[in-house]
Amino acid sequence: MNEHEPPVPVTVIGLGAMGKALAAAFLAAGHPTTVWNRSAGNADSLVADGAMRAATITEAVTAGPLVVVCLLDYPVLHEVLEPAGDVLAGRALLNLTNGTPAQARETADWAAQRGAGYLDGGIMAVPPMIGQPEARVLYSGSRPVFDEYEQTLNRLGTATYVGTDPGLASLYDLALLSAMYGQFAGASHALALVGTEKADPAEFASSLLTPWLTATTIALPLLAQRNDTSTQAAEESDSPPDMQAVAIANIVTASNSQNVDEALLSHLLIPLRDLIGQSAHGRDLAGMVDLIKKTTE
Amino acid sequence: MNEHEPPVPVTVIGLGAMGKALAAAFLAAGHPTTVWNRSAGNADSLVADGAMRAATITEAVTAGPLVVVCLLDYPVLHEVLEPAGDVLAGRALLNLTNGTPAQARETADWAAQRGAGYLDGGIMAVPPMIGQPEARVLYSGSRPVFDEYEQTLNRLGTATYVGTDPGLASLYDLALLSAMYGQFAGASHALALVGTEKADPAEFASSLLTPWLTATTIALPLLAQRNDTSTQAAEESDSPPDMQAVAIANIVTASNSQNVDEALLSHLLIPLRDLIGQSAHGRDLAGMVDLIKKTTE
Repeated sequence: MNEHEPPVPVTVIGLGAMGKALAAAFLAAGHPTTVWNRSAGNADSLVADGAMRAATITEAVTAGPLVVVCLLDYPVLHEVLEPAGDVLAGRALLNLTNGTPAQARETADWAAQRGAGYLDGGIMAVPPMIGQPEARVLYSGSRPVFDEYEQTLNRLGTATYVGTDPGLASLYDLALLSAMYGQFAGASHALALVGTEKADPAEFASSLLTPWLTATTIALPLLAQRNDTSTQAAEESDSPPDMQAVAIANIVTASNSQNVDEALLSHLLIPLRDLIGQSAHGRDLAGMVDLIKKTTE
Repeated sequence: MNEHEPPVPVTVIGLGAMGKALAAAFLAAGHPTTVWNRSAGNADSLVADGAMRAATITEAVTAGPLVVVCLLDYPVLHEVLEPAGDVLAGRALLNLTNGTPAQARETADWAAQRGAGYLDGGIMAVPPMIGQPEARVLYSGSRPVFDEYEQTLNRLGTATYVGTDPGLASLYDLALLSAMYGQFAGASHALALVGTEKADPAEFASSLLTPWLTATTIALPLLAQRNDTSTQAAEESDSPPDMQAVAIANIVTASNSQNVDEALLSHLLIPLRDLIGQSAHGRDLAGMVDLIKKTTE
């Protein structure tokens, strides 16, 4: 749409912390915004800021062409939307509820049967970031819906379209979340280790851990590329397998002697060490991706 | 030392990829550099660039006041250094071999018994980074040795002194490495998930995964601080426990249906989900640190 056209009317269904942030971002950008929540009280602050409170889910859906849904999970989503199924035709349904790729595809089918365009989204941000370019939102599903509402979607954060398969945004979202949990788990292990001595964990986190884990992201594209070309020789690695095997053994030993649980280590690092032990076959750390993939191919 | 004094003569013992990079950085900065390796041939390129090749370990140690050791592990270190124990008196021994805090402390005692000053170091860099400020090296042990040679140490990378306990640099080094392995494990899981669909893992890694894992480091100081103040209420979190429990369940479900191994998940995410389930007690993700610490206090 042209940037001089008036802001599109939007409806936001589901007013948890994220739904409220989404509605607030639309309001701030001048969009006529209709809101609905199972507990009507959640809408009070938004209504005070100019949002329209829908009395029923049907009234909410029929208020405009773009219906944004952000609920706790898919069972809640279907319970909420089912009664409005016959007024969805001709509208665009944007679903920002966290779910699996299969759930996104099923909901896309459900929406198509009711004549609605469907876009699925994964929000890679916490609520206070919504409305800023740093908040990235991944979208997949109907390309025409994305193109028509791209400017509106950019009100929430940087909109990135990842493909027509409606399950892709969810797959990417869950992949990124799993990467974050791995990072947090490693960081937590590091903080637990440091906390066993007279050290300041907060100082360690800000002055050493954060710059370190920012620097190590340089290896991530390499991790993906090496996985694509698994025949690449290990001797090209800047971090030879024998050194990594020593370091991993030292982490295990030190954690045990510092009385830090080896839960992360025994299930993650020890298979990794075994993998590195096979490095005569030209494998290195990048083999972690294969280690995690099941051996079905 | 004064920056106008001539560069200190240094000895580098152990010429694997890292030892060679250390010697090359000293040479590049104009330090008279003596090198020794069990396989003498490893020294050839350094000798061609101006290094002096020591014929014996005793000759290597006696060549100057600062002896830098970087070997595969501590058994190798003691095998190499033992014969030179009686010429160490009055010198500074800088040990950059990857090991545990206990090994560093034992070696500090061993050096003290021979009249040598001892500094232990953890190199947070791969060999190509050595000599650049981006390469950080952590030091612990003798403060006078660190102060006397700080300018020389900065030839290798940014020198950071972390404490008089000689085991601290090793502890911090292993903590940071464990954090990196957690990050890489999470990233590998993400790449495995994305690789199950028609997606380009290298493109995903560079355009989404790297910026995402850089952005999520913002939570690390918070993770450390919250661990210090475990009574802080969960409702202050920007990412409520119920949303996290849904996201984790979705990661587990999607990974199983995409045929990606749940090894990381079942041993990391499921305890985390259980922890989050206890959030009525005012805990949130920061409780991961406690989860990993053994419950001995």
